Amino acid sequence: MADLRIPRDRDDDYSAAAIKARQELIRTSSVSALEHVGSYSLDPRTLPGNIENFFGVAQVPIGLAGPLLVNGEHAQGEFLVPLATTEGTLVASYSRGMKLCREAGGVTTTVLDDKMQRAPVFSFESAREAKAFATWLEANFEPIAAAAQTTTSSGKLIGIQQFAVSKLLYTRFNYTTGDAAGQNMTGKATFAACAWIKQNYPGELHFLLEGQFATDKKTSVVNMLHTRGKRVVAEITLPAALVEEQMHVSTDKLFAARMRGQLGAIMSVTNNNGNHSANGITAMFIATGQDVANVAESSALYGFSELLPNGDFYASVTLPSLIIATYGGGTGLATQRECLEIMDCYGTGKVLKLAEIIAATVLAGELSLGSAVVAEEWVQAHDDLGRNRP
Amino acid sequence: MADLRIPRDRDDDYSAAAIKARQELIRTSSVSALEHVGSYSLDPRTLPGNIENFFGVAQVPIGLAGPLLVNGEHAQGEFLVPLATTEGTLVASYSRGMKLCREAGGVTTTVLDDKMQRAPVFSFESAREAKAFATWLEANFEPIAAAAQTTTSSGKLIGIQQFAVSKLLYTRFNYTTGDAAGQNMTGKATFAACAWIKQNYPGELHFLLEGQFATDKKTSVVNMLHTRGKRVVAEITLPAALVEEQMHVSTDKLFAARMRGQLGAIMSVTNNNGNHSANGITAMFIATGQDVANVAESSALYGFSELLPNGDFYASVTLPSLIIATYGGGTGLATQRECLEIMDCYGTGKVLKLAEIIAATVLAGELSLGSAVVAEEWVQAHDDLGRNRP
Amino acid sequence: MADLRIPRDRDDDYSAAAIKARQELIRTSSVSALEHVGSYSLDPRTLPGNIENFFGVAQVPIGLAGPLLVNGEHAQGEFLVPLATTEGTLVASYSRGMKLCREAGGVTTTVLDDKMQRAPVFSFESAREAKAFATWLEANFEPIAAAAQTTTSSGKLIGIQQFAVSKLLYTRFNYTTGDAAGQNMTGKATFAACAWIKQNYPGELHFLLEGQFATDKKTSVVNMLHTRGKRVVAEITLPAALVEEQMHVSTDKLFAARMRGQLGAIMSVTNNNGNHSANGITAMFIATGQDVANVAESSALYGFSELLPNGDFYASVTLPSLIIATYGGGTGLATQRECLEIMDCYGTGKVLKLAEIIAATVLAGELSLGSAVVAEEWVQAHDDLGRNRP
Amino acid sequence: MADLRIPRDRDDDYSAAAIKARQELIRTSSVSALEHVGSYSLDPRTLPGNIENFFGVAQVPIGLAGPLLVNGEHAQGEFLVPLATTEGTLVASYSRGMKLCREAGGVTTTVLDDKMQRAPVFSFESAREAKAFATWLEANFEPIAAAAQTTTSSGKLIGIQQFAVSKLLYTRFNYTTGDAAGQNMTGKATFAACAWIKQNYPGELHFLLEGQFATDKKTSVVNMLHTRGKRVVAEITLPAALVEEQMHVSTDKLFAARMRGQLGAIMSVTNNNGNHSANGITAMFIATGQDVANVAESSALYGFSELLPNGDFYASVTLPSLIIATYGGGTGLATQRECLEIMDCYGTGKVLKLAEIIAATVLAGELSLGSAVVAEEWVQAHDDLGRNRP
Repeated sequence: MADLRIPRDRDDDYSAAAIKARQELIRTSSVSALEHVGSYSLDPRTLPGNIENFFGVAQVPIGLAGPLLVNGEHAQGEFLVPLATTEGTLVASYSRGMKLCREAGGVTTTVLDDKMQRAPVFSFESAREAKAFATWLEANFEPIAAAAQTTTSSGKLIGIQQFAVSKLLYTRFNYTTGDAAGQNMTGKATFAACAWIKQNYPGELHFLLEGQFATDKKTSVVNMLHTRGKRVVAEITLPAALVEEQMHVSTDKLFAARMRGQLGAIMSVTNNNGNHSANGITAMFIATGQDVANVAESSALYGFSELLPNGDFYASVTLPSLIIATYGGGTGLATQRECLEIMDCYGTGKVLKLAEIIAATVLAGELSLGSAVVAEEWVQAHDDLGRNRP
Repeated sequence: MADLRIPRDRDDDYSAAAIKARQELIRTSSVSALEHVGSYSLDPRTLPGNIENFFGVAQVPIGLAGPLLVNGEHAQGEFLVPLATTEGTLVASYSRGMKLCREAGGVTTTVLDDKMQRAPVFSFESAREAKAFATWLEANFEPIAAAAQTTTSSGKLIGIQQFAVSKLLYTRFNYTTGDAAGQNMTGKATFAACAWIKQNYPGELHFLLEGQFATDKKTSVVNMLHTRGKRVVAEITLPAALVEEQMHVSTDKLFAARMRGQLGAIMSVTNNNGNHSANGITAMFIATGQDVANVAESSALYGFSELLPNGDFYASVTLPSLIIATYGGGTGLATQRECLEIMDCYGTGKVLKLAEIIAATVLAGELSLGSAVVAEEWVQAHDDLGRNRP
Repeated sequence: MADLRIPRDRDDDYSAAAIKARQELIRTSSVSALEHVGSYSLDPRTLPGNIENFFGVAQVPIGLAGPLLVNGEHAQGEFLVPLATTEGTLVASYSRGMKLCREAGGVTTTVLDDKMQRAPVFSFESAREAKAFATWLEANFEPIAAAAQTTTSSGKLIGIQQFAVSKLLYTRFNYTTGDAAGQNMTGKATFAACAWIKQNYPGELHFLLEGQFATDKKTSVVNMLHTRGKRVVAEITLPAALVEEQMHVSTDKLFAARMRGQLGAIMSVTNNNGNHSANGITAMFIATGQDVANVAESSALYGFSELLPNGDFYASVTLPSLIIATYGGGTGLATQRECLEIMDCYGTGKVLKLAEIIAATVLAGELSLGSAVVAEEWVQAHDDLGRNRP
Repeated sequence: MADLRIPRDRDDDYSAAAIKARQELIRTSSVSALEHVGSYSLDPRTLPGNIENFFGVAQVPIGLAGPLLVNGEHAQGEFLVPLATTEGTLVASYSRGMKLCREAGGVTTTVLDDKMQRAPVFSFESAREAKAFATWLEANFEPIAAAAQTTTSSGKLIGIQQFAVSKLLYTRFNYTTGDAAGQNMTGKATFAACAWIKQNYPGELHFLLEGQFATDKKTSVVNMLHTRGKRVVAEITLPAALVEEQMHVSTDKLFAARMRGQLGAIMSVTNNNGNHSANGITAMFIATGQDVANVAESSALYGFSELLPNGDFYASVTLPSLIIATYGGGTGLATQRECLEIMDCYGTGKVLKLAEIIAATVLAGELSLGSAVVAEEWVQAHDDLGRNRP
């Protein structure tokens, strides 16, 4: 058997020689020629902090959707939206929804909340001791916040939530994080805070920096209730005639379908009573250098619609745990930055704008697929555009 | 305001002229130069069925992890694993876990189930009528399956689950799908089945092809209970001394942390009582041309661990809704196929092998991060390798 | 400190002397005179099998609601419903809803399913072994069912569901149970089945008779999806004018409130998107000798309503895990049997009838409280009738 | 068909004549003689505020369990516990667990939190308006609390939680409620608060007093996370030898079973990773005049156990939403008050003591059933004592 070991002392080596050595290992141990993986325009010297053992790139095709008309507090006007995906019909479907929304006057967006967590759990000998600590923790918020602050200038500890159970105290340290997603920033700050706590608490305690209550990379009810990342709403009122003309469905059938879909979501117990938010969010995340694993959390969605007395259709989506950045992470890489720039969303001061564009995109996609299912045009669309997808 | 409209009759035009026109629209309406987005080696003529309004690619850096030693029914031996991500420390962390697993004799993997759904909901005037239909549906499985079969040669309808509520009957049409993920295949087949049903059922009925019970692109309890895609287990028993030596933690502390994390997962109500499965799954999905939006479902995880009487540590992960393909969709595109080839997972007959490699990768990642949290090495690792991540 | 020990050898002694001894212990160790607890007309000699260490009774007041008009498959006509409760306004509120339903032509009820479970979990050394057992278990259903059948003549094992995870196989043994609730019957039968399995399975296995997958006395998604006890629907269409006249609300406001309540239920994550099913169910359970702890499961509810184009209001409730009996358990005790007799629901062949009456009662209560909240009459009603409730 | 109408003007008539009239209606329309239902020692004149259309009582047998040794902050020493049930083996099983706990030194109990909610939802034209209201609501807490306070002297509004979604703002008004359960008190106070809000908010708003976010009579994640009623822990460390001697199981087998039960609870998705808390809680609720419908919420449970290095077994239960009273409601009725007096829990200043006794009882029951399942003594116990239960 071939020796497949990758030298451990080279995982942060981005030199041409190191890259070539890794490619050689692959070529000699598989049929993979890496012709395309090895073809890239990005400069590997920009990659430290984003990848280890780098050996090439995935080329993910990007399609253009839009224009998307947004009436936000931060995003205003028309936007072209880059969607990186290999799923046929996705771009076409979102574009169809964006056209509908534009003709209805655009999507109104509102950011309701913005925070990031790290969630240490503290262990004691008994519930009584945990209860005493809980009181102490509340009384010492100021110095704890000061300890956290020593590690960051862009984030701020704004509160500590407590969830007591047995002899344990689960907490959520809530931070503002500026234009960064903030998962690492909050990790460092909370570690510093916990170090201060351990040093200053008069009693004995043990802690784990993460008690699975944050719940990073995992969707959860606590994050949906209390926000992780951005909590953002997109809403629109669609005239009945416009829906009929563009989507070939009546609004009462659309609403009836929505009610059935919602009951299906209740019975199946999902984190999402909509249709397919993950499609648009994932495609935008790949294009713009977000941490794509956050799709697990970020695709959570509360949908709420109404059939108005005059037959018009009010539709809204609320994304309660949308985790994004316009600064740091993968946002500054070659193609990723260019995609953010398409929407004028690169750099500081842009993250809420991006949140609004994503929410509006999601709403457009919900309306498009929701209508297609009712109009029974859905399977046909996949036949026409998604022919590579068996 | 600039006119941002993209001509609708060109969304399936992959010619150089069409691509250039779209790029021009972006360049004239934003600061984005598309220097890197416009640099790609893939041939746009391979893209029909995967993207519309194509104008370039996202270059996502890929790191190499491994070797990963797998004792599977379908994957056997050592594998190098391509991980496409922009999150610093991810590749290093998974590699660390893979090393631990290799020294413990490798990860044992088992595929427990394999099926894909489409979930029509049928509506009636009353619960009594819905009940009558439910009986008829069960009695007519054979001709319904035959109708579904007219649309596909690689998939097969293996059963219809019923979930009755009010005057509605929600169903799940369960299919085998070969090496394809099968979401479109099952859509077409179920549409044909429903057409047959509508034509042949003596009573009146209305149906929607999707009642949000499948739950495509959305994690759900029903999918975790009953499998969507592959249900696959990865398990290992780690000697206490090895864990101490490699991960700098004792197995009893590791187990105590696991218990706290599990209770955190119960209280926060997640679809995942592990640590960060989405990280490894997403990175493999991007690299290998999977439908990345499926991360929302595919990252669901049941973890189960035991501290053995001799101090050794048994760890397992079960992925109940892993949706993947080695054929069709994005798997045949330029870099995506090359990444599948690294693991000898391209083409027909390979999908269960890929499922096992993914599950083993996830387990390695769980052990690595789980140990780092206990050893308090986690924040430090991000400082060293993830410096781009604020 | 007084010696509070109750002699252990007397817990199944129902003699006057034993009862008196227990009462003496209480009287000498507390201020409780047991004047009323000690006053009862039931014959303690009827109590073996229902209680141990008997020393008296709780007198729970019963109010009469109705008449309730039911158009069921098993319950047909008008019924007076006994409700045992100490919560003021409950009987009045349910009566108000029953009046509304009667004037609308009555409640239509349909039993959709009927089964009871016991859920052993089987443990193995590896997932591979668990998988082999799963195949064997399916192949050996006939002799396993025969083994189960040796313990009961009124129940029947109709299927075994499998839920595989890690190296474990969770199962649900599904039974019909006649007019009994069947929790004990299924316990005995499954124990016999497991004994046969242990004896005949060629490999090694360990089992626990209950893997918390049944989930007895605990509400769960699996029980709501797959039925535990009776799955029963109650539905009605209310004319808009009637609702306005009787409940002082318009149906569109009622529907708008329902939509808000449903979203509240989704966000709070309940097992019940209705209002207060537990009120009516508990009161009927206490009155009729059901195992009242089953309220935890039995109050689970799926509500589904529609505002019809003409303004009429369609309302339905589905109880997916209603656990009841008309035979055995507490149903034959003195007052309990009398309450069942009020509805002609005592004894064999009556359990589906009782299920329908309960479901119809629940629907009446939902409509009454739902309307009161919208009409803002709710607080006032409690002021008038619930004056003992601070 | 007989006329079954109950005169509506008499539902709050507790005179002998009214009672007799109702009984006559039953006797003439059914075979029910009401011999026992009509036999009661309570004085109907004590019933206004607790029941309407009173016509008799349910006699529910009560068994005596204990002594239960509690080391609480409010309950200290040994207690005899009255359990009203018709389920055979329940009293014996709880007594067995209480004996085990007593020999291990008693159960330690701790009350972690105590509050009651009403949860109005506020509706607006858009998310932007809802967001503006949210800010106003926070700024006006003082006068809102003052408005709430006008309706009660024993409760106090301590905070308002906000959960924003779409164009709606769901809230939870949190109150202390003294020794009452407080559901009505909080209803009245919140109604007064909402009236003040409606009058003083400069913009337009609509509200419903209950947005199903409280979630009265329905178990929910939000109530488990944030407490409804009392949040109380009971914990104990059991010596390995004692468990072996009394329960005939080894602690490592007990722990292994617990781990399997917990995973079953995770997969089935319950509100309770324990065994059967509803049994003990229901029996105590019926005996002591609690609102028994609250079992739906109050039986929610977080269990957490550890196998200590020396083989001893740490066990705990946390009841996060235990809704009880020692004053008001049914607590003052004839038998109910006597049962509270057995534990010296009647009247003001006793509610936390009762909470601790209930939690300790639940823990005893968990240990008893948990051991019996492992020892395979469970089915046998039902055979011996539960012979009436088919």
